[in-house]
Amino acid sequence: MGINCKNTAPVGVFDSGVGGLTVAREIMRQLPEENIVYFGDTARVPYGSKSKNNIIRFSRQIIRFLKNKNVKAVVIACNTASALALEAVQKEFDIPIIGVIVPGARAAVRETRNGKIGVAGTEGTIRSETYNKVIKSLREDAVVIGQPCPLFVPLVEEGFAKHRITKEVIDIYLSDMRNTDIDTLILGCTHYPLLRSGVMEYFGDAVHIVNPAYETAIDLKNVLEENGLVNSSGQSAVYEFYVSDTAEKFTEFANQILPYDVAATKQINIEEY
Amino acid sequence: MGINCKNTAPVGVFDSGVGGLTVAREIMRQLPEENIVYFGDTARVPYGSKSKNNIIRFSRQIIRFLKNKNVKAVVIACNTASALALEAVQKEFDIPIIGVIVPGARAAVRETRNGKIGVAGTEGTIRSETYNKVIKSLREDAVVIGQPCPLFVPLVEEGFAKHRITKEVIDIYLSDMRNTDIDTLILGCTHYPLLRSGVMEYFGDAVHIVNPAYETAIDLKNVLEENGLVNSSGQSAVYEFYVSDTAEKFTEFANQILPYDVAATKQINIEEY
Repeated sequence: MGINCKNTAPVGVFDSGVGGLTVAREIMRQLPEENIVYFGDTARVPYGSKSKNNIIRFSRQIIRFLKNKNVKAVVIACNTASALALEAVQKEFDIPIIGVIVPGARAAVRETRNGKIGVAGTEGTIRSETYNKVIKSLREDAVVIGQPCPLFVPLVEEGFAKHRITKEVIDIYLSDMRNTDIDTLILGCTHYPLLRSGVMEYFGDAVHIVNPAYETAIDLKNVLEENGLVNSSGQSAVYEFYVSDTAEKFTEFANQILPYDVAATKQINIEEY
Repeated sequence: MGINCKNTAPVGVFDSGVGGLTVAREIMRQLPEENIVYFGDTARVPYGSKSKNNIIRFSRQIIRFLKNKNVKAVVIACNTASALALEAVQKEFDIPIIGVIVPGARAAVRETRNGKIGVAGTEGTIRSETYNKVIKSLREDAVVIGQPCPLFVPLVEEGFAKHRITKEVIDIYLSDMRNTDIDTLILGCTHYPLLRSGVMEYFGDAVHIVNPAYETAIDLKNVLEENGLVNSSGQSAVYEFYVSDTAEKFTEFANQILPYDVAATKQINIEEY
């Protein structure tokens, strides 16, 4: 593959807030040469309880912003936006756009033995039944059990990921699911990997926990290769972070998730896009 | 006072979501002839963790929307917006605008014996120290102890107000305050009256709980009288409800708070204002 001037362009990654950093982290690990422009919509977080029309509108504004930053591809690092807006924005924009649901569903279908798969997600993601549809297109006889967990995002955003209260909320939301015989559980919201240890402990070894972030980075690699967009400049990657609300809280959080200093996060007005 | 054609114009009331309905309810009780246009910013809820600039921008858009509905006065039925945006929007608009903080502070100063007042609120409200400043302007020797409770709004919005998990979150946030000798506690967020019974039980009879909603309706009455804006048409009031996200969830909630059916809630795009 020849070196194309576009190949050094960054990949755009966005989420409603800090959750998508778990996907950005995976891209940084697997594709260390790719530059990234990350956007966290902290002025409008959370997305999970909001309507399809609004999520499409928010996603459209963000992709316009990212295109202004000359991104060569976009990763919707948010399950709610992947479930509700991916199809709409793929039709509107002329660059590759991928979500986190297809990769997550594929990983779950690969891991399950008995075909019974749980999905924990936001209200919007679960109600859309997108995981359900994608999983069944991959394995027709799969049984999918979805559970909305609307307090998980606020708990993570407010720094309660490791708090005992979160263990109780895990029990409130997931006890019904634990009583089924699922052998695989998708963490169907990019905030949830930050609750991973609590969820793993709750389900024990019998249930395989799928984090779509890992699989999404593999999808991104494939998409970049198919489109001749891999960055082969040999230079070390540059990461930029933008948010729609104040940067301080985001930066503090990002520094807990990412293995380096996220000093230069900038605030922008996303409603201008 | 003569009957003015403007007097039948509605009062605008807004909040980030359903919390402000506790203020609307109090206005309905105390001023049963006043028409109300209520707006809940459910597309951008919660406000409490967001920045002053964004809260001013949101408030400005909402007041423009309410002015399009010909409101004669506006009640900012949200502590965060009252703390961060009231002063700015009062300068920009030509109708009376009141918030909930001055009424709440005045009630607390009236109720306290020892001058030690607790304030539970959002991060934005507490960090602004607006309650602190207003209380001290009314009683110089008052001691004000503020406590941000960022999970209270998501707990209320997700229907957990009466859940045992909420009792634990109350303990997490308010145990330090319970160990002081405050004799008065302001519920400094319009969502918190929905947690009132849990908070009252937690503090016991020794602490007087102040809900600014009651006092805010009194302030509204005074402002309408001072400006010759009291509705004396003798007709029964009409209430309209608007939200920036889907109406279903809001309507369901409103019907729990308000003593009648909120059937006709409409969704609008607030970013157009």
